[in-house]
Amino acid sequence: MLFFVNDYGEGAHEAILAHLAETNREHLMGYGSDPYTAQAKEKILAAAGCPGGDVFFISGGTQTNETVISAYLRSYEGAVACSTGHIACHEAGAIEHSGHKVLTIPGHAGKMVPAELEAYLAAYYADGNHEHMVFPGLVYISYPTEYGTLYTKEELTEISRIAHAYHLPLYVDGARLGYGLMSPASDITLPELSALCDVFYIGGTKVGALCGEAVVFPHGAPAHFLTHVKQHGALLAKGRLLGVQFDALFTDDLYFKISAHAIQMAMKLKQVFLDKGYPLFIDSPTNQQFVILTKAEAEEIAKHAQFEVWEPHGPDAMVVRFAVSWATEDADIDALAAILPKK
Amino acid sequence: MLFFVNDYGEGAHEAILAHLAETNREHLMGYGSDPYTAQAKEKILAAAGCPGGDVFFISGGTQTNETVISAYLRSYEGAVACSTGHIACHEAGAIEHSGHKVLTIPGHAGKMVPAELEAYLAAYYADGNHEHMVFPGLVYISYPTEYGTLYTKEELTEISRIAHAYHLPLYVDGARLGYGLMSPASDITLPELSALCDVFYIGGTKVGALCGEAVVFPHGAPAHFLTHVKQHGALLAKGRLLGVQFDALFTDDLYFKISAHAIQMAMKLKQVFLDKGYPLFIDSPTNQQFVILTKAEAEEIAKHAQFEVWEPHGPDAMVVRFAVSWATEDADIDALAAILPKK
Amino acid sequence: MLFFVNDYGEGAHEAILAHLAETNREHLMGYGSDPYTAQAKEKILAAAGCPGGDVFFISGGTQTNETVISAYLRSYEGAVACSTGHIACHEAGAIEHSGHKVLTIPGHAGKMVPAELEAYLAAYYADGNHEHMVFPGLVYISYPTEYGTLYTKEELTEISRIAHAYHLPLYVDGARLGYGLMSPASDITLPELSALCDVFYIGGTKVGALCGEAVVFPHGAPAHFLTHVKQHGALLAKGRLLGVQFDALFTDDLYFKISAHAIQMAMKLKQVFLDKGYPLFIDSPTNQQFVILTKAEAEEIAKHAQFEVWEPHGPDAMVVRFAVSWATEDADIDALAAILPKK
Amino acid sequence: MLFFVNDYGEGAHEAILAHLAETNREHLMGYGSDPYTAQAKEKILAAAGCPGGDVFFISGGTQTNETVISAYLRSYEGAVACSTGHIACHEAGAIEHSGHKVLTIPGHAGKMVPAELEAYLAAYYADGNHEHMVFPGLVYISYPTEYGTLYTKEELTEISRIAHAYHLPLYVDGARLGYGLMSPASDITLPELSALCDVFYIGGTKVGALCGEAVVFPHGAPAHFLTHVKQHGALLAKGRLLGVQFDALFTDDLYFKISAHAIQMAMKLKQVFLDKGYPLFIDSPTNQQFVILTKAEAEEIAKHAQFEVWEPHGPDAMVVRFAVSWATEDADIDALAAILPKK
Repeated sequence: MLFFVNDYGEGAHEAILAHLAETNREHLMGYGSDPYTAQAKEKILAAAGCPGGDVFFISGGTQTNETVISAYLRSYEGAVACSTGHIACHEAGAIEHSGHKVLTIPGHAGKMVPAELEAYLAAYYADGNHEHMVFPGLVYISYPTEYGTLYTKEELTEISRIAHAYHLPLYVDGARLGYGLMSPASDITLPELSALCDVFYIGGTKVGALCGEAVVFPHGAPAHFLTHVKQHGALLAKGRLLGVQFDALFTDDLYFKISAHAIQMAMKLKQVFLDKGYPLFIDSPTNQQFVILTKAEAEEIAKHAQFEVWEPHGPDAMVVRFAVSWATEDADIDALAAILPKK
Repeated sequence: MLFFVNDYGEGAHEAILAHLAETNREHLMGYGSDPYTAQAKEKILAAAGCPGGDVFFISGGTQTNETVISAYLRSYEGAVACSTGHIACHEAGAIEHSGHKVLTIPGHAGKMVPAELEAYLAAYYADGNHEHMVFPGLVYISYPTEYGTLYTKEELTEISRIAHAYHLPLYVDGARLGYGLMSPASDITLPELSALCDVFYIGGTKVGALCGEAVVFPHGAPAHFLTHVKQHGALLAKGRLLGVQFDALFTDDLYFKISAHAIQMAMKLKQVFLDKGYPLFIDSPTNQQFVILTKAEAEEIAKHAQFEVWEPHGPDAMVVRFAVSWATEDADIDALAAILPKK
Repeated sequence: MLFFVNDYGEGAHEAILAHLAETNREHLMGYGSDPYTAQAKEKILAAAGCPGGDVFFISGGTQTNETVISAYLRSYEGAVACSTGHIACHEAGAIEHSGHKVLTIPGHAGKMVPAELEAYLAAYYADGNHEHMVFPGLVYISYPTEYGTLYTKEELTEISRIAHAYHLPLYVDGARLGYGLMSPASDITLPELSALCDVFYIGGTKVGALCGEAVVFPHGAPAHFLTHVKQHGALLAKGRLLGVQFDALFTDDLYFKISAHAIQMAMKLKQVFLDKGYPLFIDSPTNQQFVILTKAEAEEIAKHAQFEVWEPHGPDAMVVRFAVSWATEDADIDALAAILPKK
Repeated sequence: MLFFVNDYGEGAHEAILAHLAETNREHLMGYGSDPYTAQAKEKILAAAGCPGGDVFFISGGTQTNETVISAYLRSYEGAVACSTGHIACHEAGAIEHSGHKVLTIPGHAGKMVPAELEAYLAAYYADGNHEHMVFPGLVYISYPTEYGTLYTKEELTEISRIAHAYHLPLYVDGARLGYGLMSPASDITLPELSALCDVFYIGGTKVGALCGEAVVFPHGAPAHFLTHVKQHGALLAKGRLLGVQFDALFTDDLYFKISAHAIQMAMKLKQVFLDKGYPLFIDSPTNQQFVILTKAEAEEIAKHAQFEVWEPHGPDAMVVRFAVSWATEDADIDALAAILPKK
């Protein structure tokens, strides 16, 4: 059975497993105070072009979002996000559990429009009654978005300008950051992205690691962020587990190389669907491809390949997601092409 | 340099690494819905003698405590614990962050005394003013305790009886459960412990795993516990990372065998200190040994071995902790014996 | 200057002040355990036709909403409300502060449509991914709504049926309940409303009292609700302040009589606007009237009367709110009619 | 039946009722933006000698404590208080509900000892492990304390110095502030107290008002404190209810005069007990008197007077509290003297 369900369906890149194995019996201090964690941080800051920044490692994405966002917000503040933002719908209320509202503005193929963000913030402060409303306290975007789309450098620059004009930190959810940066459609580099935002995370779980996300504060972390991480249950005793993995990922550009490979696979996958005549729901330049299938087509393909049903598309069709990852191989795409009926 | 700082200073038992490696490229569904997680759960429930129970895997201990406790408590309830309980002092306020007070009663070498628990609860309900106070909503104990001590079966039975008489669930923090159960001083089995409590966790991080704790509800979990886990940021996308590890730990009694080995090392370590004339702070039957050293002694030993300073003991001395684990070897203890001056 | 800004611009009905004064020096027990509070509860339960129910008094509306909603919800649950519901926008994130998401569905002139509620809940449970989403845990509606509109008995019956079919409690925010029930457009009685919901509150602040809302649980309150109230800072030491006021409000139908008077004033006010040719934004049958004014008209009227600007209505006009209350007099409306230019 | 149960057993001082009545039909803007609230604030700031400060009015004490404390604390911080502090035991977990731990140090007749506070903070920062513990974020004391005792100016100065040396704000709970300041045992004035702390509140509920506490920030409030108040459900729509009351209390020194009267009554009450041979539990200089009674004595006195049982005192005796207030009259004390048996 072919597997295109998601981008976290396999274990870890072999280089990561090897690094874990070779360091396994070393006696290391806990909670991220080991040398592998230290050098992973250094490599990440170098790659992000912000040597004076701070890095923390956290096990998973929802935990990262909740911990980062609540570290920035005062209790009367909320996070501004797209209605399709991960924090707005698929984190079981983690942000609200920490006491904060997610303030949503419309999503357009997963993206917020800078002018709409600016209008929202301007209207907020124009409204004399805003003392009875949740204050915007941070701007959250995903790169790539939950629909696989990418902001342009111009859009990111504009969102950064707007957020900072309102004294709001800009947070970029990079659960799939590598798949964004390595897309040919991306016109921004990691140092450029880093310069524009206050905090972002480099997703490991979906890009080669067993688990783990690297939270980067290019311009420095909020005070006592480590305690904040601990309080949110997000501090691993064996911090090495995350440090060693990211040390491997940021050695010899592994993170970027495996991301680039995944994008090659994604483009090949997209071409297969186009060649066979299937319409795309969104023309995604990253590792998630959204295709429209009729129920009958979906049923047929499901005999050979696993994928995810995203949402209904009229009464007889549906949007489905085919995801590839660092672990997808040429042969997987070829096999899909072989079984995919021509429309 | 010899290492006795803690029990999470190495990676994972080799059988775990091997199992991760051999399953690495299998395509598995996420969030714990893979077959390795399923069989790990089954093995754990069998070992705990509660085949009808529920098991969930969570990355770390603080997160586990916070997620489990808040799943049981109504907002006006708190968790009753020893003043030395982990949740009361070393979790950076994680329980309070979820809105609940930790109600403390005195600790005696890390343990609560059943009669004191009963008196506390009786006084609470006798006090007519209790509507203005936090309700006790759950009883939390650690096995072994934070001081390496163990409750007897009689004490556990009594605490269970008292908790249930007041309709409170009993939760056992088993961060080092194996090191408790495998101690010759333990007079209780896992199924017996399981029968007495409503929820406990089997610590993996300190007993052979890279990370992970198995939360066991012998009589069934609270409704929608998985969503609760997700909301608390405690649900790993690659649930396999935890499932595969616990599958290895509960195959061929590995968890118990490596725990028993650690206890052998601990007893040998204790004997070394006693033979050389050092006083124990507590006569611990488990993997953590608390010894009293003068400042001069500590300084001398620190040239050769790492350990943890626990607390001052008068103006010139201190309590120190020497911890062993599944990874400690005979040679480590012998080397310590060789460098430890006779008093 | 005429005053139509809101319905909380004056003190209390004179009968309330008199009752406060005549009981002022009596020595009474605190926290609502005095006889005036007891008899106020009894009178309210009689008026609501649910003698076996429970009543609690809380100072204000936001506090009431937050305390009631969080008493019902488990931590992974949220409250389903209209996008225009008070809890969704004008309570500064009070619901989120207590850890819960407000799940919004569209508002139609302030009302939710039963079929849309049902579709929302059905879709929620149809979606296999709902374990990663906030569970609907309670249905919140306002009667009258924030736009002064009313649900019909049929609509309320249907919403009640749907909520209960999904095992969700139905909560009715009655900040202006009297103004709803006494409207000629209302086809439901208080006992009928009471029978349909699990909890509602009878607003005092906007209907004759200095402060205070009466929370009614027709079928009984959640366990330890008083402690819940205390924990939320909502329990007044001098509970008599609320008990005495509601005792007066529910003696000789005062609450209903002053509400009916307000509705007479509102209908007279509406007629004034219609007679002068002003378009209504919403044809409200209750005490809040929403009128469309051009900027020039608003400026002119503002020389003589205070009102509230609600929202822009195209580039040159705006929706304004004229509110009347128990304290509005015939002469106020006549005076407005005198200064209001004919369009 | 004589009434000494508490200091909130009557309504309001007549001057307050009169002021409410005379302003009752004035049309005033809501949420504290009326002129009476404005002038009450001005009068309070003048009395406190901090004309540049900020004042907010909140209905009750628990709500005030929770709202003020959470406005200052970051999520990883807690409030340092005596073990007998009101926030530590009798607020049903309100502080924890807002996510913060109450960090307790020993109480001595209700007071913290400055040297113990300093030692606690010093030890905290000396402990290398403090990143895993809740940070002290604010120092909370009560004046007078929950046991009716008073800090000296020297003690307050010292506590202020220590708190500020650790960059912690000092918060004084003044639920009974008047009864402290007007005690002959007090050696501090309101402006002196005000200068030493960052925030305090002037209790109205127990000193003449129907409800209400005035929160004073002598050196300015935290940003957006009004929204914080709203979010905590603590913002009354009819803010006038609090403004008018405090306007009356701070006109012609009413607050201080009625406090002084209460202290006269308290000293007279104390003398009655001493004259009749009853031992005091604490020699309180304020309005709460704690006396030791045998069970038989308590039973006898209870036939004529109501008082509060505080706590057991050995097997056959108990500590009881006799509270007086602004509403207590000479005749009340005389009547008690008449029925109190000589020991």
